[in-house]
Amino acid sequence: MDLPPMPGKVDPAPLTAVLDGRWAELKRAVREQLTGRHFREPIGLDVEEHRALVLDQLRELATTDWPRLGFDPAHGGGGDVGGSVMAFEMLAFGDLSLMVKAGVQWGLFGGAVQLLGTERHHERYLRPIMDLDLLGCFAMTETGHGSDVQHLRTTATYDPATLEFVIDTPETSATKNYIGNAARDGRMAVVFAQLVTGGEGRGVHAFLVPIREADGRPSPGVSIGDCGPKAGLDGVDNGTLAFRRVRVAREALLNRYGDVAEDGTYSSPIESDGRRFFTMLGTLIRGRVSVAGSACSATMRALALAVRYGERRRQFRRPGEDEEVVILDYLAHQRTLLPALATTYAVHFAQEELVGTLHEIQSADEVDERRQRELEARAAGLKAVATWHATATIQAAREACGGAGYLAENLLPALKADTDVFTTFEGDNTVLLQLVAKGLLTSYQQDFQDLGMLATARFVAEQFVGAVIERTAARQVIERLVDAGSTRDDEDALFDRGWQLRLFEDRESHVLDTLARRLRPAADGDAFAVFNNAQDHVLRAGRVHVDRVVLEAFVAAIERCDDPDATALLDRLCDLYVLSTIEADRAWFLEHGRLSSTRAKAVVAAVNALCQELRPHAETLVDAFAIPEQFLDAPLLHSA
Amino acid sequence: MDLPPMPGKVDPAPLTAVLDGRWAELKRAVREQLTGRHFREPIGLDVEEHRALVLDQLRELATTDWPRLGFDPAHGGGGDVGGSVMAFEMLAFGDLSLMVKAGVQWGLFGGAVQLLGTERHHERYLRPIMDLDLLGCFAMTETGHGSDVQHLRTTATYDPATLEFVIDTPETSATKNYIGNAARDGRMAVVFAQLVTGGEGRGVHAFLVPIREADGRPSPGVSIGDCGPKAGLDGVDNGTLAFRRVRVAREALLNRYGDVAEDGTYSSPIESDGRRFFTMLGTLIRGRVSVAGSACSATMRALALAVRYGERRRQFRRPGEDEEVVILDYLAHQRTLLPALATTYAVHFAQEELVGTLHEIQSADEVDERRQRELEARAAGLKAVATWHATATIQAAREACGGAGYLAENLLPALKADTDVFTTFEGDNTVLLQLVAKGLLTSYQQDFQDLGMLATARFVAEQFVGAVIERTAARQVIERLVDAGSTRDDEDALFDRGWQLRLFEDRESHVLDTLARRLRPAADGDAFAVFNNAQDHVLRAGRVHVDRVVLEAFVAAIERCDDPDATALLDRLCDLYVLSTIEADRAWFLEHGRLSSTRAKAVVAAVNALCQELRPHAETLVDAFAIPEQFLDAPLLHSA
Repeated sequence: MDLPPMPGKVDPAPLTAVLDGRWAELKRAVREQLTGRHFREPIGLDVEEHRALVLDQLRELATTDWPRLGFDPAHGGGGDVGGSVMAFEMLAFGDLSLMVKAGVQWGLFGGAVQLLGTERHHERYLRPIMDLDLLGCFAMTETGHGSDVQHLRTTATYDPATLEFVIDTPETSATKNYIGNAARDGRMAVVFAQLVTGGEGRGVHAFLVPIREADGRPSPGVSIGDCGPKAGLDGVDNGTLAFRRVRVAREALLNRYGDVAEDGTYSSPIESDGRRFFTMLGTLIRGRVSVAGSACSATMRALALAVRYGERRRQFRRPGEDEEVVILDYLAHQRTLLPALATTYAVHFAQEELVGTLHEIQSADEVDERRQRELEARAAGLKAVATWHATATIQAAREACGGAGYLAENLLPALKADTDVFTTFEGDNTVLLQLVAKGLLTSYQQDFQDLGMLATARFVAEQFVGAVIERTAARQVIERLVDAGSTRDDEDALFDRGWQLRLFEDRESHVLDTLARRLRPAADGDAFAVFNNAQDHVLRAGRVHVDRVVLEAFVAAIERCDDPDATALLDRLCDLYVLSTIEADRAWFLEHGRLSSTRAKAVVAAVNALCQELRPHAETLVDAFAIPEQFLDAPLLHSA
Repeated sequence: MDLPPMPGKVDPAPLTAVLDGRWAELKRAVREQLTGRHFREPIGLDVEEHRALVLDQLRELATTDWPRLGFDPAHGGGGDVGGSVMAFEMLAFGDLSLMVKAGVQWGLFGGAVQLLGTERHHERYLRPIMDLDLLGCFAMTETGHGSDVQHLRTTATYDPATLEFVIDTPETSATKNYIGNAARDGRMAVVFAQLVTGGEGRGVHAFLVPIREADGRPSPGVSIGDCGPKAGLDGVDNGTLAFRRVRVAREALLNRYGDVAEDGTYSSPIESDGRRFFTMLGTLIRGRVSVAGSACSATMRALALAVRYGERRRQFRRPGEDEEVVILDYLAHQRTLLPALATTYAVHFAQEELVGTLHEIQSADEVDERRQRELEARAAGLKAVATWHATATIQAAREACGGAGYLAENLLPALKADTDVFTTFEGDNTVLLQLVAKGLLTSYQQDFQDLGMLATARFVAEQFVGAVIERTAARQVIERLVDAGSTRDDEDALFDRGWQLRLFEDRESHVLDTLARRLRPAADGDAFAVFNNAQDHVLRAGRVHVDRVVLEAFVAAIERCDDPDATALLDRLCDLYVLSTIEADRAWFLEHGRLSSTRAKAVVAAVNALCQELRPHAETLVDAFAIPEQFLDAPLLHSA
């Protein structure tokens, strides 16, 4: 390979600037504030002590501006949607229980009041929510329905005689479960329930229901349980909520998307129950986006610990030398950490871009339904990829620190335990990737049904790819690189960005194309069986779509970098992201004639070469995350 | 595909018989005893409560026969080496802290006294160790040396003036670390230290050193630390030990492999310091074997929970139907759990066989060095594969149970947290797989050096494979199947056992062959760089070797089954193990022309088909593990 030489030593500052992106100023401010505060690591605390500590820290947070960022300025909020997500991300460098508790209070509970409620709710509740005078829950999931929330079974039946809704848990499996803030601190809950009025079901709506009295006891008719100790996040008081014919005023309905008049007449700006519910869910997307961002932060922290340890720890002598080898000098160790590091940069850039899009869409005066749906698909896909990447990387980082990595004082155990649930909460990853694929297939069906499914599968899939992935202005760089890309079939082409981009695009379009063809029989036959038999293909379609989105975000981020050394380093890191991704999936590229055996073997060799080339920059690359040092103060870095 | 039809419903009993294997009777007895006892799950306990509970349970165990199984009958032991490992495996269905604490006390501490000590130690210590009147530690690992224990730095200097050894920790990094039983309960430790006598170093030896007085305070000169909370295994009191010129009698040396006379003269039956140390380590192999077995038990338990939940949990409706779909009916869910289930059977069978070999070798009157070395390589490889499989499978099982899987009461969190360290303790997996590969390369060097490395790489590698994998009488079945195997290149051949076996064999021999060739320059150049640049290849060589060993053990186990329905089911399960293993590595098979694109795609389709075919038998397959029901009593199985 004949690649441009790498700089000897790169300054992390310009890398940090690229990583920080659009909200760099806010991030700098939060970083400074975090450095001043002493958030204690919750090591060795029992569940109750940890919960108490987290509530104390939450109250401390409430004295800052961050929790207000995402709310309406008319009620004291900061009106900065993207900034609020970024603040959660920064918080995720510390105890994740605090991040999740803050997310429940201000993101989910406060977010639901703001986005599903109307002026009467905003006026009354937003300030106490921001100030933490009203602690609340987001009570959606039930024991029996977690992924399929459209079919949850709690009911809210309107009684015109008293102008009240009766909230009821009709069976044990309809108990609200895993609800943050429920077991200990919450006074009120946004309860999602099937609205029934005039004997007719209107689908799922959200209601503000008091769950605790001023003295802390459960409100009449409300049963509160405690989920008890968990794999992690023990500072969050998850619990269960069940309602025995609990009456709330008609105004308790968060009525932005559907309302009930005094006489029980139902009205909504959206006709279909299903579409209305998914529109409601769609507005609540910040939670899912924040989880992806927090997963990135936790991954960065784990990598920073493992890379620094890898630079300090020595084991085994090189023949003929007295000093032992620094373990990051071992290729196997580089292979464990460096592709994961490259992927973390990649996923972070995609996340940063996603937050920008979220910010624009949610700050706009008009709802752009098409962009909103695209945002939802992207958020779903990125959440799945970011959280699985977190689980795998934190696990690898733990193992890379050996026995030391298993001790609580060295921080990796909590990172592992706390992030574990990220793969299944705020949407189960497997379900989310299917949403991505289904979303795409749906739009294709809408556009091309009348052309006849049989004849047009190929055409359709191609159109679909073109349609969903409309390149924004920022993406001119992608087109330019693709057009300029090499068509040579030699080894050097592996490092040609245009070739790489085309390879990812082509894989996505082929996977979707063949999926559409495979699902075609679903139109007449047993749709469930056809879809189910292709479920591995469906998941792969979601996955390769996200891979392409992530790569394009990486490429766009490099374009934003104005420091030549940092650019050179990011370029090489992007190569490692691309080639390790291809390596992991090279069976597909081989099976589909996209790579020859020779090229495929060259990919493996290139990953090795890139690991060795990037190895001297590993610590710079984690320093650039600019994680406040207080969160990296682990004894293993002193004793290695 | 045209496969023999599967039986409708299979009785788990004959499957259990095959799984239980040679120690079936012992396992049945242990199972019955376990069912009678009430080992409480340590949910919600703090570290000190958990430690106290585990010690209580350890004392209860000491009243049974199991802890005695592995010891010399002359001192009240059971003389059943294999049985003792099996008892640890059974214990690993419960709280893994108890298994590890028992392993430290009777396996590591007691095992070292028995296997490295001589009659004077046995006479004095074995009974109190078995009875738990003497609690002890196995103090090998130091902060600075975990994998490279040959270079640990604690010293034991003989002082002929007083006929004593002086045990000393010369620097902080030489502190013994992560030592089980040290922080709270241990009274004595087997301390590994560099023996120095007459001013000369003699390599690492083991010494019995008192660490606590009768009243529980540290002995003079001994500093004891507490590792504090860990990711898991909080019921084990891991700690640190440092020695400031602690004097012990000359007889404290465990002197089976090396002794010091009163005048300080050193003698040993083994000349080389290195070889002596690795011989000592080799005798202590039971610990590593027990970890692999315990990893299997924990994996089985996690799969039993997840499969049963998958059979009970429903989510999303099938179009046109009222009842929701059982989640194990989804292909994606089957793909998450069933290949892992097949691999668990496979690894278990290899483990069962390994314990048999261990038993024979350690029960024999004469040491067969060749077999001992082969056993060590196999134990190292299987430990790495079994523990990584445990980590991945328990993670998948947790995710497969969604939010419920995150609650401590549902047992998966502890399984995850406790087994996590298995990948890095009793030998770091990455180091172990390299040991496997290096062991093979060493024997090749010994045998063929004089033939010249350049010319004979291919020949050598083939010979090596033939040599290390001598088939025992039990393995005639493998040869028969290989010889009878199909050479057809059609889809059905995927299910031909002979073809499968040849494919695994061929992969191993090719990977070793090319590795030998790649390492050839190491003979003259920078050996470290050559080896390091090929480290991914080295790890792969270890891995594919283990894969073949595991497959052959599965095939041999099927041969032992005399129930036709159970045999048919195991046959299909073995297909799933083979084909999902090929699927995961099909890039290699494609790159090396072992599979065409068409065949590779057929492998993927076959895995899907096998998942669906085996799906109705999933619960039977986990029932066959015969895990005492008290260890599967999780609320999520009642509320799904």
